[in-house]
Amino acid sequence: MDETKKRAVVLLSGGLDSATALAIARIEGYEAYAMSFRYGQRHAVELECAVRQATTSAVEHRMVDIDPVSFSGSALTDDIAVPKHGHVDELTDDVPVTYVPARNTVFLSFAVAWAEVLGAHDIFIGVNALDYSGYPDCRPEFIEAYEAMANLATVAGVSGNRLRIHAPLIKLTKAEIIKRGNALGVDYSQTSSCYDPAPDGRACGHCDSCLLRLKGFEEAGCADPRKYIED
Amino acid sequence: MDETKKRAVVLLSGGLDSATALAIARIEGYEAYAMSFRYGQRHAVELECAVRQATTSAVEHRMVDIDPVSFSGSALTDDIAVPKHGHVDELTDDVPVTYVPARNTVFLSFAVAWAEVLGAHDIFIGVNALDYSGYPDCRPEFIEAYEAMANLATVAGVSGNRLRIHAPLIKLTKAEIIKRGNALGVDYSQTSSCYDPAPDGRACGHCDSCLLRLKGFEEAGCADPRKYIED
Repeated sequence: MDETKKRAVVLLSGGLDSATALAIARIEGYEAYAMSFRYGQRHAVELECAVRQATTSAVEHRMVDIDPVSFSGSALTDDIAVPKHGHVDELTDDVPVTYVPARNTVFLSFAVAWAEVLGAHDIFIGVNALDYSGYPDCRPEFIEAYEAMANLATVAGVSGNRLRIHAPLIKLTKAEIIKRGNALGVDYSQTSSCYDPAPDGRACGHCDSCLLRLKGFEEAGCADPRKYIED
Repeated sequence: MDETKKRAVVLLSGGLDSATALAIARIEGYEAYAMSFRYGQRHAVELECAVRQATTSAVEHRMVDIDPVSFSGSALTDDIAVPKHGHVDELTDDVPVTYVPARNTVFLSFAVAWAEVLGAHDIFIGVNALDYSGYPDCRPEFIEAYEAMANLATVAGVSGNRLRIHAPLIKLTKAEIIKRGNALGVDYSQTSSCYDPAPDGRACGHCDSCLLRLKGFEEAGCADPRKYIED
């Protein structure tokens, strides 16, 4: 614990975006408290990545168990096929079956509870509204509304210590996120984005998330260090 | 399942207020889906009441486990003494140590997730801003902000099916709530409000919640059917 630093709770999924958000929170001078969720996701390999990232960064890390039934109805939690595409241009603007109902709302709520206990007034979330999968809870208007709500929900908020939800990636392209992370020394080999990885953790290369990630690395002009099934 | 009725998720703590909110949801014509939370509360006897209420009302009931560490720092979850008073006038306007960080925010978030899966656009919560314990997340402005956020967070919201958070008790006194519940046939012997009950479930009679409840029954002009330690 470093008494000279302000604390921040950082949502850490194990993916590329939240790993970058963690690095940004730390470079901005916060003492980070990372939080991950085990909710029956079929891509649980991301949690192993989250643990490694937290260990590498030497930050306190809390893993919260959420009964998978709470998030039923999504291809990420249920026995519903994850859509695969040949190219990123095939993605549509519709909300896809990989949408997990109210996931970021639930995750942020646990982060707000932990922030209250820690005396933290800052929460970081790696949502991104450009190269994303079309989920409603990744948009700037959602983040703004969540912050307004959280300031009415908490003792921190009502006592004048404004709680802030930081979404530093929200207006960046995937390529910009990767460039930012590379500049901050993020090890992207320790991040997993795939919605449907092989048992050994290799990425499928064809789900929405893989396609957006691969396009991002291509546009950033560097190789993706993550292993893919077709490598 | 009744296809002719609109579905509503009802947060059911096992206490007096939420039992009344459940009865109101049903009399308003909703098919209710009750949701309770096991979060390490020392007054877990309320969950037995919630189960009995759901059974009596023949509604589907989901019990969600939340890791107690998520709500640490409260007298309701930790080894902190629950304050006792001789009279209700001794309660102050300060947020008391029985405040559980972001509890209603977390509970509502699970309710929103379930509503998305059920195709429900209505959520009932028995919060009450008059005879209450001074928690920030029981005020009308919190409920309004939560509803605004939820409509940006969900597919239901973005597709034009406005999600509504109903707080039918928010402007009622405890006595008014009890009168309403009596008119609807709520069995208050099956409700537990005490923050620090005896192992056999009897209420302490001196915590904030007991004092507000006893005052409510007195003002409503009827006896509280719940057993108290001093009875």
